[in-house]
Amino acid sequence: MTTTKKAGVLGATGSVGQKFILLLAEHPDFELYKLGASSRSAGRSYAKAVKWRQTATIPQSATELVVVECKASEFVDCDVVFSGLDSDVAGDIEKEFKESGLVVISNAKNYRRAPDVPLVVPLINSSHLDVVARRVKQEKKQGFIICNSNCSTAGLVVPLGALIAKFGDISDVTVTTLQAISGAGFSPGVLGFDILDNVIPYISGEEEKLEWETKKILGSIAEDDSFALRSNMTVSAQCNRVAVSDGHLECVSIKFATPNKPSVEEVKQALRDYVCESQKLGCPSAPKQCIYVLEEDDRPQPRLDRNRDNGYAISVGRVREDPVFDFKFIVLSHNTVIGAAGSGILIAETLFKKGLL
Amino acid sequence: MTTTKKAGVLGATGSVGQKFILLLAEHPDFELYKLGASSRSAGRSYAKAVKWRQTATIPQSATELVVVECKASEFVDCDVVFSGLDSDVAGDIEKEFKESGLVVISNAKNYRRAPDVPLVVPLINSSHLDVVARRVKQEKKQGFIICNSNCSTAGLVVPLGALIAKFGDISDVTVTTLQAISGAGFSPGVLGFDILDNVIPYISGEEEKLEWETKKILGSIAEDDSFALRSNMTVSAQCNRVAVSDGHLECVSIKFATPNKPSVEEVKQALRDYVCESQKLGCPSAPKQCIYVLEEDDRPQPRLDRNRDNGYAISVGRVREDPVFDFKFIVLSHNTVIGAAGSGILIAETLFKKGLL
Amino acid sequence: MTTTKKAGVLGATGSVGQKFILLLAEHPDFELYKLGASSRSAGRSYAKAVKWRQTATIPQSATELVVVECKASEFVDCDVVFSGLDSDVAGDIEKEFKESGLVVISNAKNYRRAPDVPLVVPLINSSHLDVVARRVKQEKKQGFIICNSNCSTAGLVVPLGALIAKFGDISDVTVTTLQAISGAGFSPGVLGFDILDNVIPYISGEEEKLEWETKKILGSIAEDDSFALRSNMTVSAQCNRVAVSDGHLECVSIKFATPNKPSVEEVKQALRDYVCESQKLGCPSAPKQCIYVLEEDDRPQPRLDRNRDNGYAISVGRVREDPVFDFKFIVLSHNTVIGAAGSGILIAETLFKKGLL
Amino acid sequence: MTTTKKAGVLGATGSVGQKFILLLAEHPDFELYKLGASSRSAGRSYAKAVKWRQTATIPQSATELVVVECKASEFVDCDVVFSGLDSDVAGDIEKEFKESGLVVISNAKNYRRAPDVPLVVPLINSSHLDVVARRVKQEKKQGFIICNSNCSTAGLVVPLGALIAKFGDISDVTVTTLQAISGAGFSPGVLGFDILDNVIPYISGEEEKLEWETKKILGSIAEDDSFALRSNMTVSAQCNRVAVSDGHLECVSIKFATPNKPSVEEVKQALRDYVCESQKLGCPSAPKQCIYVLEEDDRPQPRLDRNRDNGYAISVGRVREDPVFDFKFIVLSHNTVIGAAGSGILIAETLFKKGLL
Repeated sequence: MTTTKKAGVLGATGSVGQKFILLLAEHPDFELYKLGASSRSAGRSYAKAVKWRQTATIPQSATELVVVECKASEFVDCDVVFSGLDSDVAGDIEKEFKESGLVVISNAKNYRRAPDVPLVVPLINSSHLDVVARRVKQEKKQGFIICNSNCSTAGLVVPLGALIAKFGDISDVTVTTLQAISGAGFSPGVLGFDILDNVIPYISGEEEKLEWETKKILGSIAEDDSFALRSNMTVSAQCNRVAVSDGHLECVSIKFATPNKPSVEEVKQALRDYVCESQKLGCPSAPKQCIYVLEEDDRPQPRLDRNRDNGYAISVGRVREDPVFDFKFIVLSHNTVIGAAGSGILIAETLFKKGLL
Repeated sequence: MTTTKKAGVLGATGSVGQKFILLLAEHPDFELYKLGASSRSAGRSYAKAVKWRQTATIPQSATELVVVECKASEFVDCDVVFSGLDSDVAGDIEKEFKESGLVVISNAKNYRRAPDVPLVVPLINSSHLDVVARRVKQEKKQGFIICNSNCSTAGLVVPLGALIAKFGDISDVTVTTLQAISGAGFSPGVLGFDILDNVIPYISGEEEKLEWETKKILGSIAEDDSFALRSNMTVSAQCNRVAVSDGHLECVSIKFATPNKPSVEEVKQALRDYVCESQKLGCPSAPKQCIYVLEEDDRPQPRLDRNRDNGYAISVGRVREDPVFDFKFIVLSHNTVIGAAGSGILIAETLFKKGLL
Repeated sequence: MTTTKKAGVLGATGSVGQKFILLLAEHPDFELYKLGASSRSAGRSYAKAVKWRQTATIPQSATELVVVECKASEFVDCDVVFSGLDSDVAGDIEKEFKESGLVVISNAKNYRRAPDVPLVVPLINSSHLDVVARRVKQEKKQGFIICNSNCSTAGLVVPLGALIAKFGDISDVTVTTLQAISGAGFSPGVLGFDILDNVIPYISGEEEKLEWETKKILGSIAEDDSFALRSNMTVSAQCNRVAVSDGHLECVSIKFATPNKPSVEEVKQALRDYVCESQKLGCPSAPKQCIYVLEEDDRPQPRLDRNRDNGYAISVGRVREDPVFDFKFIVLSHNTVIGAAGSGILIAETLFKKGLL
Repeated sequence: MTTTKKAGVLGATGSVGQKFILLLAEHPDFELYKLGASSRSAGRSYAKAVKWRQTATIPQSATELVVVECKASEFVDCDVVFSGLDSDVAGDIEKEFKESGLVVISNAKNYRRAPDVPLVVPLINSSHLDVVARRVKQEKKQGFIICNSNCSTAGLVVPLGALIAKFGDISDVTVTTLQAISGAGFSPGVLGFDILDNVIPYISGEEEKLEWETKKILGSIAEDDSFALRSNMTVSAQCNRVAVSDGHLECVSIKFATPNKPSVEEVKQALRDYVCESQKLGCPSAPKQCIYVLEEDDRPQPRLDRNRDNGYAISVGRVREDPVFDFKFIVLSHNTVIGAAGSGILIAETLFKKGLL
């Protein structure tokens, strides 16, 4: 008796799709079952269709799968479908999948702002999945979409959420990001000539996403099961692209709303002590430690720390007082794991543990 | 009749020293006259003593100069001495030079905090040189030290100063830097293995310098001709090293003290309109435009914009409102020109134009 | 009375086109007159149509020019047209221009192998332009195409040609290249994610070009004015892309056909002594020194030496005996100047000096 | 009953030492027992003494070990000592260890040319260890030194040796390397400012090592158990440093001595079929496949292929005919695993399997 669930991947040849495939290849809960890509790739074996750019070799379980078009009829047997589609096509395709009763976990931005779609970073707001649970309870086999967040948002919200849980409201957040080029995908991605010996101080739409998504993720569920933004917190973001392959670094300053400020040591302890639901549920990809608090002056660093707990953990360093705000610190997260495909996987594992798949 | 002044360079084989030599090589006001370095290099021709790392070839006027030790007796004929010494030796040597009646313009950090030493970014506070003028007037041929600022400070203070001049006090500044590796010099400098595919989110002492020096440079001259810090402005800095050869990028947020805030357009116009004293004096190295305000979303960029006006101009981009503060923008400055050796040159040109050399 | 010639640029928004525009902007012989690009760009000012990626700012003389489509009728007033077109469109367009009586100097590969088209690296085989001279003499105002070489070829043929001229036939050449990413252009160019912390040991078609073009450039003019390949020389190439913005480095081993081998010192002297025709003619862009022979162990280096004589000179270093062949050495050339647009400019200057424009 | 052997590491805080520690941390045969470093580090815990630069975190088994000085008396209980010492101190220290009866496996160059010291790349000439076996048989508990090769040598000799074994003598080899910066170690290592946007076409002593060591490794054992160089093969090397963290790429051309040349397909098959002794012995670190022959045009690439079989395998690609020689191909090897520390580990595993430890 097999208990694994059948998984499909949309946009399987792209940057996020390749990562989904790597993470699903030897997964205990999921079986790589269907791979969807553009009509140009459809009909070819995955090994032939893909320009593979990962440091691990293509998983055996993927090479011989024949790529299909991204139509719900092709994925009807899937228990869960992971979408790494580009936003220019994700809107229509994911909608069709949902309406066909499929469960779509999407990395695309298209439905993140929909009031009835959970926007989930599983290390911090898996409670938002309760909305789905209630809906599923009402009507079996209904399709739905769950979005994971933008890559730079995923790193920020985890320490913010952990600190709010411990010390109460944060009124102001200023964040400057130094983001890896893998976040831009491969098509067109970031040109080598543009990033070598350079910084690109702009990522289209990124600052808006980071400022807005943070408020939805750290927001609450309204009585009608829609998602309410966290209204008493203001976020200001400046986003940069740097010559790093993987790993987003973020320089953060925060101000608590309460007059009783914790000490630096209390802030660090709260981050260290934080445990997320996927850890408690025993999800196979859950990090051993949700937030690593590093004490060395010059850590975390993208190259050295991005792979902690296989990229599912967040690293925080240089926690110190801020002369303008209350505290400043840096956050590092693996943008293609917990910042993208890995978040999707961990959402699916959580759904599975809760009996929602 | 020659009117050029004799220039010496201390630490001539190092990173800053090499840049001084490049900038002085065909200078209309200064003649490369004496080169000082460690006893290991003394006695050798400059071409033999130096491990030259600049993209321009070694200037003819430097190659055959014989390197001497950094003793005042060797530099007694110099009208001005530029110091690119490391801080571990700069303290004693610069003191000896000053006490021997020499004019020292230093890139080292040792005397920046001395209450009687001007700390000057010539694009913004050349007025601080008036203190020197008054002292020279009192006693001919007296030695003195003038310091240029830390490299990351130079970029920040220019737009801040221009905005204060136009709109009044700024109460809060938050700045995150993305700094080039040339700023670390060559010995030991930043290891390639440490910076490739990486960010180092820490530069020893840098944040303290940036937060403190900004207040001295934008401060005032007290009645006793000592320098008073700007007390009503708080600065919070986070400093990072990125894989860029030259050019420091800084993401800045500011809050004005006044309730009457200018508009984004007024801020940009004030930056564009700003003219510094070295421009008015006709200093040969003064930038054509002190602050370039770029309108493209993704500019300034280090590789594309660092060399504007030969590295003597500051570039500002992405001026926009800040949901937490009033405004945010990015600043780019060439860290080894206006952020180091070039500032020294421009200070010397200003002194020369004012008859103080 | 103006004596400047009207210049057109095809593919003006691309990588090579941008370089043509920079090199023509303040040219004493040529006036930037027409800019051609795809229909998507046509009708817009150049400043609006282009995504400018050069370290120098867009020349004033180009910004306000209105981009036109690449049709001969638009360029009929041009004395010379420089083509930076991609090879997928260059074939038809350049043919139409030639048939309309226009002089086309092309960086595209399409006509390099045509037996009646000169393939010219102006530092070494400008004598091949004599064929054009004879044709022009026969029939006034006839159109023709001249090709500059592939970028990696340009660096190799100059020292080879200089040594053949001095010491006679070379029978065998082995060359391994380390090529800059600017050589791949911008569309799609080399992805940052692919080249960061990496080498790509393959450039499509490059080895064949390097092996074949070298023989045409160093070949002779047959009696019927067609070009004959140098048949007694074999070239073997291995081509790699490395994380360098500009500047191709090539590791070369050569074997002379003659039993009387020169010494290392004689080889170096022959390279130093070599003077090309564009130098003799006084072409404004001709290098001061055609081949710089560097004596330091670790030179030439792309970042430090690519801009010698504005990128029009070749640097050779590490000339030494080879235990398998006779000699080995390294060659550095600026791939977008003498390896592309600059070669075109120098060809045009040579034609102009010879009265062929 | 434990059967693990006690392992010491000399130079434990350096680049190679850190790698030894990583590879030994959870090794089935060896137990991390003693760590030696300079007197500056001695007496401190390893975690405090080291500036750790690896992407994996410091192994638990190393953190609390107290670093000792590199004296034989400290290591007298060790069954095997791995030396990652710098060559300026390795000579004396390794000699003292050997004379104290210790088994030293060294990454330093000092004894590689000693006629009685085996120079071993365990994937290709572990048979050279037989000399040690015979000596040990004669006299129990005698000390000896075994050297692993220079990093660039390790990649080259494996395919060469495999082809010689199958097809007979190779007369000529030309190799151009593109070497990673980790090969230079950390002190001083390669400066970021020197390698960013650059190639350094020189590595001191490297070409001589590559040309000479290849002949010793592929040479034979003389009757007196000294090592005889392979005299009928000539190697010419050109060595470059590129902006890659780990992984040496080598462009190789070879000429067989025999008139009966194999085909390209036969060459590839011989490489694929090659099996080394450490595989047959079941050494725990032996690669699954000794030589991977890649068929894609653009592979192997350092970032994508360096970690095949944990860095113990060699990758070969682009096998094709060479117009000057017989064949050309590229070789990729992980310079700090099979090119350094990993070779030492595999030598020790082989000794262990043969009962020589």
